[in-house]
Amino acid sequence: MGALYVRSVQLPTKEVDDYREIAGEAAIESLRTAAEPLQGKRVLHINATSYGGGVAEILASLVPLTRSLGIDADWQVIEGNEDFFWITKTIHNGMHGGDVTITPAMLATYREVNRQNAENLEDAWDFVVVHDPQPMPLIREVPGSAHWVWRCHVDPSHAVPACKELVSEYLPEYEAGIFSLDAYSEGFPARTRATIPPSIDPLAPKNQPMSSGEIEQIATRYEVDPTRPILSTVSRFDQWKDLLGVIDTYRQVRQAVPGLQLLLIASMAHDDPEGWIFYEKTLRKAGEDPDIFFLTNLRGVHAPEVNAFQRLSAVGLLRSIREGFGLSVSESLWKGVPVVATRTGGIPLQILDGETGFLVEDAGAAAERVEALLTDQDLRRRMGAAGHAHVQQNFLITRHLLDYLRLFGRLEDQTRAS
Amino acid sequence: MGALYVRSVQLPTKEVDDYREIAGEAAIESLRTAAEPLQGKRVLHINATSYGGGVAEILASLVPLTRSLGIDADWQVIEGNEDFFWITKTIHNGMHGGDVTITPAMLATYREVNRQNAENLEDAWDFVVVHDPQPMPLIREVPGSAHWVWRCHVDPSHAVPACKELVSEYLPEYEAGIFSLDAYSEGFPARTRATIPPSIDPLAPKNQPMSSGEIEQIATRYEVDPTRPILSTVSRFDQWKDLLGVIDTYRQVRQAVPGLQLLLIASMAHDDPEGWIFYEKTLRKAGEDPDIFFLTNLRGVHAPEVNAFQRLSAVGLLRSIREGFGLSVSESLWKGVPVVATRTGGIPLQILDGETGFLVEDAGAAAERVEALLTDQDLRRRMGAAGHAHVQQNFLITRHLLDYLRLFGRLEDQTRAS
Repeated sequence: MGALYVRSVQLPTKEVDDYREIAGEAAIESLRTAAEPLQGKRVLHINATSYGGGVAEILASLVPLTRSLGIDADWQVIEGNEDFFWITKTIHNGMHGGDVTITPAMLATYREVNRQNAENLEDAWDFVVVHDPQPMPLIREVPGSAHWVWRCHVDPSHAVPACKELVSEYLPEYEAGIFSLDAYSEGFPARTRATIPPSIDPLAPKNQPMSSGEIEQIATRYEVDPTRPILSTVSRFDQWKDLLGVIDTYRQVRQAVPGLQLLLIASMAHDDPEGWIFYEKTLRKAGEDPDIFFLTNLRGVHAPEVNAFQRLSAVGLLRSIREGFGLSVSESLWKGVPVVATRTGGIPLQILDGETGFLVEDAGAAAERVEALLTDQDLRRRMGAAGHAHVQQNFLITRHLLDYLRLFGRLEDQTRAS
Repeated sequence: MGALYVRSVQLPTKEVDDYREIAGEAAIESLRTAAEPLQGKRVLHINATSYGGGVAEILASLVPLTRSLGIDADWQVIEGNEDFFWITKTIHNGMHGGDVTITPAMLATYREVNRQNAENLEDAWDFVVVHDPQPMPLIREVPGSAHWVWRCHVDPSHAVPACKELVSEYLPEYEAGIFSLDAYSEGFPARTRATIPPSIDPLAPKNQPMSSGEIEQIATRYEVDPTRPILSTVSRFDQWKDLLGVIDTYRQVRQAVPGLQLLLIASMAHDDPEGWIFYEKTLRKAGEDPDIFFLTNLRGVHAPEVNAFQRLSAVGLLRSIREGFGLSVSESLWKGVPVVATRTGGIPLQILDGETGFLVEDAGAAAERVEALLTDQDLRRRMGAAGHAHVQQNFLITRHLLDYLRLFGRLEDQTRAS
């Protein structure tokens, strides 16, 4: 037996019925209908980490909601040593198109850690959803009759050849491959292809309703002035987000909108040296301008604070050169805050140009659109309302869960038919 | 039994004889003489952490060197939960004079965690050296006939009353209290009082000799120009170090010394929110000046890099308002680099004013002295040589170890005499 064990993540209870008001009666009824043929089935989600990042945030809501529909769902994370996580981080960077080298020795460790985890994995599941490349080789080692599905959370279109090969080696063994956008699955050999965009949980601490008292308290704690206009960007610090460009836009717009404040909201990962380099560059570019705020986990900014800062904002801005999906756009739209952003990743699905925000091609257009929104309250309100409605229809966790249930149903039907 | 266990720290071998050339024949002979009556004795050092910070650095050298003298030394760290370490961090801040509240419930947890560790502590020691307040209550719970000594690594003279009381409650149970400076033990009820300043290990990665090739390679990696003059500060980012003042001094001096570079060398602790606030303030004050370098562990700066950057420096600068001891001064002096610093903590023991560097009272004097050194190579060489000799005689790990062995001998004599 291997010495590495997948572990279940402890999760609070969540009830689908609590989403009735927010997602609408019809959404809940569709969920119940789709769950009907899956009663008592066992669904396992496996990924590499239970904290930090969008995948963990989604599973923390998705799995308890699946349970509340009479389906026996679990979320487990694989175990690994430092080498393994360094290797999978390299693979992850290569998936994003980073210039990485993946040696045969690295691949051997990657497979061996998965083999050991697989040996200790219970095999009494009906559906196993494997998230991202880290646990992808598990499938080869586990017997049993489960439907195995691979869920890709990144944009793999720019992946380096070694990473494309790796995914292409394991993907045909899965019954289905799920990607966030149609374009992301191009060139990958999936037996069944599903497109499921990610989603936000409107009742999670990052998105749930907040009283204006709470919001003001958080503004005061971070010395943000709620009476002056606020532009905000929620983004990691890396080379693909162009935060230096965000500061340029802010400076340009501030000439027309005096007193404008810029909130840069991010979570810093301690194991991401590149992130620190961009963090420092951005801080130094900001200089001593007291109206640029760096709001990170280092300063105690977690989900509730992000929620408050988004609600305080008049406009959201993303100038990313590349995005996995860009889900922070939906977080802003949900709070009635229109967003100006570049046309990349899943952003055009969320920003309907001129309706829920503006898609922009260059720095000039970004500044112009941000200024237009900041100086026109009616436009902001109209777009904010349209954005909220668009997210309600397309990017809530209930829709996400429905897509999974329908895919599971389809896989069962295929098996029965064959 | 408690569920918490002290754990031994794994250490490499070190040989006192390897220090013969660097510390001098006489120093090694004194060590052997002092170790003679302690042959086969068992010495235990206990603290709260095996990594990060000066205490861990010292023990990593002190314990293996003690072993190489025929004494059975061990270093163990106590175990605790998150609450405990949050509480001891609060106590630590209070020891430095920070405005903290220590509740009875916090004290109860603090004592209980120590009680559980104590229950699992082997009691067959001749000497137990307890470092800093975290494991201080251990003594109350452990039977046996060991000589217990408490070693204080901070400047406790500004401690808040609650912290002074805590130390004063436990200290009388110890046979001796060791402080870094005479002045630091004032007002504390120690049965035997010993002053032992800290030390540097000249063969550790932070101080060991380095080839100019290695040094240049590191300079190149961080884009520091070794052909232009370098001023460096090694310091944590906190309110007591006045790094904003360091930038002011650099800017002032740069007018007279064009091309001057400033290296700010530090280690960031992830659990120190205050540190991040000062880090950000300093980055933002530095702005986009390409000749100010932030060289931290976040960017891969560890002991060898610190070593190289100190060796690259023409002058060291510390403008601390308060210092535990200020051992980075000795690190610089050891490398032949004179230091300009404020008269605080143990700095005046290391900087003999006008001989190994300059003690300064205000910003004007700091800039004046730094400029004087940067523009006078002869003065730098003379002071650098004097600084190296001063550290060799007073602040090497061999002297530090000798002080411990002599204290142990004295405690044995006292017991025999009583």
